[in-house]
Amino acid sequence: MDSSELKPIAGGGLLDRRLFMQKGLCFSLAAMAAGSSEASMSSSQRLPWMREPGKAFSNYGQPSPYERRTIRWTMGNEMAPGNGVSWTPLHDLEGMITPNGLHFERHHNGVPQIDPQQHQLLIHGLVRQALVFDLQDLLRYPMTSCLCFVECGGNSNAGWHRRPIQTAAGYFHGMASCSEWTGVPLRILLEEAKVKGGGKWMIAEGADAAAMNISIPLEKAFDDCILALYQNGERIRPENGYPLRLIVPGWEGVVNVKWLRRLHITNRPTMARNETAKYTDLLPSGKARQFSFVMDAKSLITSPSFGQRLLEPGLYQISGLAWSGRGRIARVEVSADGGESWAEAELQAPVLAKCFTRFRIPWQWEGDNTVIKSRAVDESGYVQPEREALIARRGRHGYFHYNAIVSWKISAQGDISHVY
Amino acid sequence: MDSSELKPIAGGGLLDRRLFMQKGLCFSLAAMAAGSSEASMSSSQRLPWMREPGKAFSNYGQPSPYERRTIRWTMGNEMAPGNGVSWTPLHDLEGMITPNGLHFERHHNGVPQIDPQQHQLLIHGLVRQALVFDLQDLLRYPMTSCLCFVECGGNSNAGWHRRPIQTAAGYFHGMASCSEWTGVPLRILLEEAKVKGGGKWMIAEGADAAAMNISIPLEKAFDDCILALYQNGERIRPENGYPLRLIVPGWEGVVNVKWLRRLHITNRPTMARNETAKYTDLLPSGKARQFSFVMDAKSLITSPSFGQRLLEPGLYQISGLAWSGRGRIARVEVSADGGESWAEAELQAPVLAKCFTRFRIPWQWEGDNTVIKSRAVDESGYVQPEREALIARRGRHGYFHYNAIVSWKISAQGDISHVY
Repeated sequence: MDSSELKPIAGGGLLDRRLFMQKGLCFSLAAMAAGSSEASMSSSQRLPWMREPGKAFSNYGQPSPYERRTIRWTMGNEMAPGNGVSWTPLHDLEGMITPNGLHFERHHNGVPQIDPQQHQLLIHGLVRQALVFDLQDLLRYPMTSCLCFVECGGNSNAGWHRRPIQTAAGYFHGMASCSEWTGVPLRILLEEAKVKGGGKWMIAEGADAAAMNISIPLEKAFDDCILALYQNGERIRPENGYPLRLIVPGWEGVVNVKWLRRLHITNRPTMARNETAKYTDLLPSGKARQFSFVMDAKSLITSPSFGQRLLEPGLYQISGLAWSGRGRIARVEVSADGGESWAEAELQAPVLAKCFTRFRIPWQWEGDNTVIKSRAVDESGYVQPEREALIARRGRHGYFHYNAIVSWKISAQGDISHVY
Repeated sequence: MDSSELKPIAGGGLLDRRLFMQKGLCFSLAAMAAGSSEASMSSSQRLPWMREPGKAFSNYGQPSPYERRTIRWTMGNEMAPGNGVSWTPLHDLEGMITPNGLHFERHHNGVPQIDPQQHQLLIHGLVRQALVFDLQDLLRYPMTSCLCFVECGGNSNAGWHRRPIQTAAGYFHGMASCSEWTGVPLRILLEEAKVKGGGKWMIAEGADAAAMNISIPLEKAFDDCILALYQNGERIRPENGYPLRLIVPGWEGVVNVKWLRRLHITNRPTMARNETAKYTDLLPSGKARQFSFVMDAKSLITSPSFGQRLLEPGLYQISGLAWSGRGRIARVEVSADGGESWAEAELQAPVLAKCFTRFRIPWQWEGDNTVIKSRAVDESGYVQPEREALIARRGRHGYFHYNAIVSWKISAQGDISHVY
């Protein structure tokens, strides 16, 4: 099939999402083997790694030195180096899993180096029996696993800026990562402690030097919260909460308390710093939106995106991520003409609730100036808003909970910038 | 609910797999908070990590120093240190994902340190047009992701020994790991090269100093093979084939060629070392089974397993892994009375084809001597065999493709050993 035969299904050259499942598609990106292919083979046999024995086995592997640019970009506070953020480089990744070394971080007072033998979890307050759990106790309890995203409530906050930030997709939206978390269903421990009738909230507290705490409704705790001990198969890493992290699927990152040491059952929220001064949204009415825990549906195109470059007109695959705190992604629509027309992207199976979903769609770029963007719709029917719609609803003083559509401008030279 | 009220559904104390979803279950493993729970709280506030700022951010995270015993156990050859194996510590892991640092290795001549700028893939032989692909070309092709296991055909080979090996579950069965692989569907590149009518096989060759090669039927290549560039989100690591690995879902590890540099299309297999001297099975008839690519269904209990210890009688969760090269796991049955009776385990969602599936079942151990084991059944109806049945079929001279049921003996003291 010649590329001139390809029929766009939306403006800007978007093609049917099933195109790549058809036969006979020709990208013609490869070089034809020059001369005899045997000549090409023998020349590559002169490469050093085919001539000398390779490296020995390792007890624990690391990325290739050629990938050392694929890192979490960190932003700390010079006066308090453990207070800040590191971003997952979403623009360098593919698929839906975030490798453990690249899961985003948000710390208030650095990463505690906890000895698991000395770590305990206390459940107390409005319970019939306050209980203390050692790690060895917890490891004996029944476990469950959940593939889900964790996203900071402050992720993508540069979207509130008056001018579009020019930075890589991951350093804009990468306070979101996705792992398989395994641990003890919190419900089981709460039932052992026997919550009293008045118990409606729990205050979760971490064992870091900030003793970070936040209030969570008990209804969610009984629903699907996990006391996670494992992340992507292995024990959780220090910066992600070793040895114990509360996982609250679909809810803003700050409630997924790391280094969890205490659950205090109460009849009302404690009104801690992170639910009053932070993670609230001042609305145009002058009132503030509080306890907006569920992360609304979001999507973004990771390839092509800022910092990458299209070298020539031709056939491309647009690839990105979508997720929603309300459940499964129902569909992702992509526009390659600045939002005038949209086409549905292919969703990579399995499509799981409250989990990153990879979407992909073929695209014939003719070398014109254009704007590409994506729009997620979740199973509740929620539609990711355009930026103007989000600002109309939430005002101009926002910092948290930004989930508007992300637009990348492609220049005729193939350069990519962020535009509103 | 008191544990005396629990009704076993099979011998040895196996309980209904849905038990842990019920309310009011009491494990009573936790200590009651001594004195006031506030006293317990303030004592833990004296721990060093709550008193001093924690560590700073890191560009790439590593496991906790307290988990440094969770490693790949390596077995090399002193004369040729790059020839050998490393095992995934399945007994230390939970969930279904294997973290990249712990994916098993099998190398013939070490780990090549390949410069991706110099790496090429050649497709040649019975094609209309031989093609050479640079990495940059491949990264522009459409991608797909597959969560699947890779298992060495020689995994669990100690099962053929006359006496049961006494070693941790992972160092017996851990030449199997599970990742999300992302890359280019091989079908697309083969269509570009236009395979000629006589093309029935491809010889896949790696760019290591052994130039490891093996023959694969083209029918599988067109079905679901992937030229993988990413593993669990990030670029594949050197020991797993950086920068390019052939992923052949459900088929024995050796065909998942690492450091892939060449696909030579032929009309018949090449009869390379790894499909004649190795990875074949000498049968009782004196004939050898060859090209037995599909990995039969297997399961094993990872907790409790050899090297762990039951400290006291009580309620436990038996947890393990099951997988099949033929498709999805249909069910896993567990016995706690040496195979006299069986109960169905809970399968952790999502249950995916050719992918690790975590199974779990509650178990009330009364402190008696007993034998626990698991049996996988896949969607094709294949049932994991007992060891005697496997030996009756395949003889006593086997080395590869061992997938019999694994039995762990629990002593009255709670010690665990491997038995036939």
